[in-house]
This record gives sequence, C-alpha cells and structure tokens, in this order.
Amino acid sequence: MQAVIIEADAPLHLGTVARPQIGESEVLIRVAASGLNRADLLQRAGMYPPPAGASDIMGLECAGEIAEIGAGVTGWQIGDRVCALLAGGGYGEYASVDAGSLLPIPEGMDYISAACLPEAMMTVWANVYDRCSFQPGEAFLIHGGTSGIGVMAIQMARVYGASAIYATAGSDKKCDKIMELGGTRAVNYRREDFETAITAVGGADVILDMVGADYVQKNISVAKINGRIVNIAYMNGPKMELNLLPLMLKRLVLTGTTLRARSASEKARIRKGVEAGFWSAVQTGQIKPVLDTAFPAAKAEAAHAMMTKGGHIGKIVLEWS
Amino acid sequence: MQAVIIEADAPLHLGTVARPQIGESEVLIRVAASGLNRADLLQRAGMYPPPAGASDIMGLECAGEIAEIGAGVTGWQIGDRVCALLAGGGYGEYASVDAGSLLPIPEGMDYISAACLPEAMMTVWANVYDRCSFQPGEAFLIHGGTSGIGVMAIQMARVYGASAIYATAGSDKKCDKIMELGGTRAVNYRREDFETAITAVGGADVILDMVGADYVQKNISVAKINGRIVNIAYMNGPKMELNLLPLMLKRLVLTGTTLRARSASEKARIRKGVEAGFWSAVQTGQIKPVLDTAFPAAKAEAAHAMMTKGGHIGKIVLEWS
Repeated sequence: MQAVIIEADAPLHLGTVARPQIGESEVLIRVAASGLNRADLLQRAGMYPPPAGASDIMGLECAGEIAEIGAGVTGWQIGDRVCALLAGGGYGEYASVDAGSLLPIPEGMDYISAACLPEAMMTVWANVYDRCSFQPGEAFLIHGGTSGIGVMAIQMARVYGASAIYATAGSDKKCDKIMELGGTRAVNYRREDFETAITAVGGADVILDMVGADYVQKNISVAKINGRIVNIAYMNGPKMELNLLPLMLKRLVLTGTTLRARSASEKARIRKGVEAGFWSAVQTGQIKPVLDTAFPAAKAEAAHAMMTKGGHIGKIVLEWS
Repeated sequence: MQAVIIEADAPLHLGTVARPQIGESEVLIRVAASGLNRADLLQRAGMYPPPAGASDIMGLECAGEIAEIGAGVTGWQIGDRVCALLAGGGYGEYASVDAGSLLPIPEGMDYISAACLPEAMMTVWANVYDRCSFQPGEAFLIHGGTSGIGVMAIQMARVYGASAIYATAGSDKKCDKIMELGGTRAVNYRREDFETAITAVGGADVILDMVGADYVQKNISVAKINGRIVNIAYMNGPKMELNLLPLMLKRLVLTGTTLRARSASEKARIRKGVEAGFWSAVQTGQIKPVLDTAFPAAKAEAAHAMMTKGGHIGKIVLEWS
C-alpha cells in the first residue's frame, strides 16, 4: 500500500509499505481521510516515538470503511463507514485499529469531516469530562481555542451546558470563530493578558491547556475554588517557576494526560464516553467538524508546513483517493 | 472563661475572655484537652488569620463534654464525651462548634488521647481518601511520618489495606516509630535521598506531603502512573522550579487542600467519612492516638516551643483541669 514516509533531509512523500496485519480484536480500515495532529510534527522530528506495537507511520486518527475484521470483533461489518483513534498509522491507505476505538460515521457526513473528530473529541472527553469531571453550570477555559482540539472543546462544552466558555487565540479572526462556535468570551493573547481578562469575568472551574510554561501559574491564578487544570501538551515548555500556595488554598487540581500511550481498553472506555455523551450531538449537527484544509495525501509536506505555521482554524486533513 | 492569649512580645499566657455563644446548629464543649497543630504557630505569628466567624483564639481541635446544645441540634446530649474539629478556639475552657464536626469519644479513651484524633484523621481522610481516592492495594508515601498527621496516616493506610506504606522522617528514632505503626519502609531523609529510596521500591500511588519546595519534583518523580500527590502545607516553601513533563506522561494529579476554610457542611461530610471508614478501628484500638506530651494549658508557651523545635513524635496536647 501507499503511505507517507519520513526520510531524513527529505520532504514527506508517498512510498510503498506492507499493508498492516490485524489482530483478533482489530479491524483494518481502508483509509479515506486522516486528521493531522501536532504530535505528528513531533513524531516526524523524532521526539515522539510510537508506543510499542504501534505502526511507525504517522497519523493518530482516520476515517474510512472497514475492509477486514478480526475473529474476535463483534458489532461491525465489512463496508461500515467508521472513524477511529489510532496509536499510529493514519497516514497510509490502510490502518489497523482495536475495534474499541471505532466510532460510526453519522449518515450524510463525508470522510474528510469525520476524520476531524476522533482524536479531538476523545482528547477533550478524557481530559475535561473524565479526568476533570466538568459539570453543567461550570465555567470552562480553553487555550488554543481554534486548534483542532479547541474547536471541539468549545462545542462540546456548549452542548454540555457550561455556564461560560472562555477561549484564547492569537488573532481576531480566530477569536471571531471562537464566538461563532459558542464561546462566551474570546481573548486575543497578542492584545490582552488572559489572566487579567479571565479574572475579570470571574475565573474558570476547568482549564484545558496545551501551552504550559508561564501559562501554568496564570491558570492557577484564574482557577476558581476546587478548579481543575489539565495540560495535554506544553508547547512553550514543561519547565517553569511556580508558586503552589494558591493551588492549596483554592484546593485546585493540576494534572495532565496523554492519550496515545493508554491501553486499548482505556481507549475503548474513552470512546464509549464520547459516544454516550456527545455522539448524538454530532449526528444532529449541534457539534460540527471544523475543517481548515484538506490536502491530497501526496501533499503531506504542505499539510505539515501549514500546521507548523499555525494560522489554521480547526483541522487539517489528508485525503486518499 | 480562661483561654490562651496571644500578646505581642510576650509568652503565651492565660487570660480571661468571654465564653463563646453558640448558634442553632452548634454545641458548646467544656474543653478538657486541645491538640496542637503546626497551623497554631502560623496563627500566633499573624500569618494564618482565623476564617470569618471563627474564634480568634488558637486551637483547631479539642476533646471534652457537651455543656450546651443549640436548638437545631439532634443526636447529642449534654454531658456527651466528644472530640471535634474546630475552626478556632480550642485553646480555651469552652469552645463552640458546629455539631457536624463532632465525633463520639470511644469508651475507655481519655480526653487527652481523644484530643489527638480529630484534626489529623479528618485531614488524612479529606486528602488521601476523598481528594486522592486512595484504594486498597495501592502504595502510599507520607512525608513527616511521625508528625501528628503522619502517625494517623500510617495507621489508617494499614487498616485500609495499603499494599505498602512508605514514610520519611528526620531521625532513626522516628523511623523506628514509623515501622512500629505499620510502615513498610521508613526513610531517614538526613541519611538518604527519598527519591532514590522510594524509586527503588517501585514508587507510590498516593503521596501526602507537607514539605513542598524541592520535594514536589521528587514526589512527581516517585509517583506511579495515575499517581496523586497532595500538599497540606509547604513547610519549606510553596515556590519551586518544576518540570511538569512527567506529570503529563504519567497522568499524575498534583493537588492541595486546607481544612479550616471549608464550610460547616463540607466538614460534616469529612467527619462522616472518618466515622464511616475509620472510627470502628479507633474503637477497637487498631488505630491508636499517638501522644508525645501533654502540657497544662498554662504552659502553652512550652508546648509551642516543643512543636517549633520539632523533635516530638505524634501529638502535643494542652490539658485543662
């Protein structure tokens, strides 16, 4: 099959590799579209090796149809239209995945749109709803409000009944998108300090952050009593000076998680959480995929360049023809 | 009534103050013994003011008998022997307290022993069992293993079914006490690095810390996957440099709480947790108060000096005659 190949000192390009084998609990997906994630950039740079047993091809999510089914899998049929969280291998014409990580594509939704959903929705659920127990009526703050994660986090919080949804982003255009998706207050961090802005509106109960560095102390500052702060990345670095006194006095939780390294059964539990809590809202269109650009898989280099530059809103997707 | 008075540039001494009034949901305790807590030293130094509505007399716990009962209180009678968590006022002959913070003194236990229990057991329950959801079969690490908190935390974890109980302390004598109380491994931090020692035994699922400063990064280092770290103080300071990458990769929780500022209903919930989970073990003697020294209330200055010096094991108590 064809897949996107990483080669030192060369642009990403297609090459021929073996089609993945499936295990008893897995299915083979003929991939129609694969979502990009920032972790792909790290993997390409050699800083995020795939977990044991995973494909060494990039790609943490895809949409397509089921081409083969393992002997132990029930509830799915060949030809079913699915999207899936992957431990790797999304940037290929076929990908194998544990059946527990599959979600059914809603009727009428195309593959490119469906490829925008699994990683973002499962990441948001695992962190905001599972780890941080976000409750209806609570105030939510998300950094990177127009990232692939951000656009889903805002919509999910709106559907779930957040009392307020605050988000930061780096341009007025992005802030407009935050408000269009259901935000209560968007903060352009190039123009104003989010600590001041979010303090002024009363703070947040749950904060989803991928920036790290000096954002961590500010997150602690704007968290309300019993607030929870979760990091899914430290894009500006994981090292910082901290004063934890307000963490104790406000009884905060500072935590972080990654999705990729978790077991198949953990991922199945997270997928179930997304399906039970939010999939009907996807089916009815209350929650919509937010696509920035779809590239042909052969143009993966251009897709990575766009993500590296960072001006996009929502997801970047590779398409297989 | 008599109470221990704080006066600038003078030793602690007894003075005459008004007997506290009780509200509808409160009882008045004729205090027989009051436990010391490190927070008392901070309050005396002006760094830990009592919360709104609380007595400005020191003292976060006491044991005695009920002398008056508010109109809205049920289930208690005048003359009942009780111990209680207080928002303040323990260093006096009478203390008022919300009835939700009362625990019945087990038959045969004297007041001095009973005064060793409420603050430590409620603090341990609120942090280790409630906030950090400690589970039977998990490994537990406590710093300050022979502090008033430490000696109860070790015994509670033993009764609850910890797979291992690790504790740090500053002398071999204290380490012997840790082992006598049920510890699996005691670390004399003056002789060995706890990070190395606890890593060698496989790490801990839940860590109860009151040291802070450079202990925080080491706690992160020795925490197992999905580990929880809770600070109830930062005796060496709340400021530090941290690298949070392992917090995310191991999906840890870093949190902290204080007890005093919580609402009466929160304290009642915590008291119920102690009563339901651990009070029968106190009644049967599986969990024992650990008293270092009882001083007459008039010798509060000497009691504070002993706590400041820090060589004690277990609780220091003031006794009213």
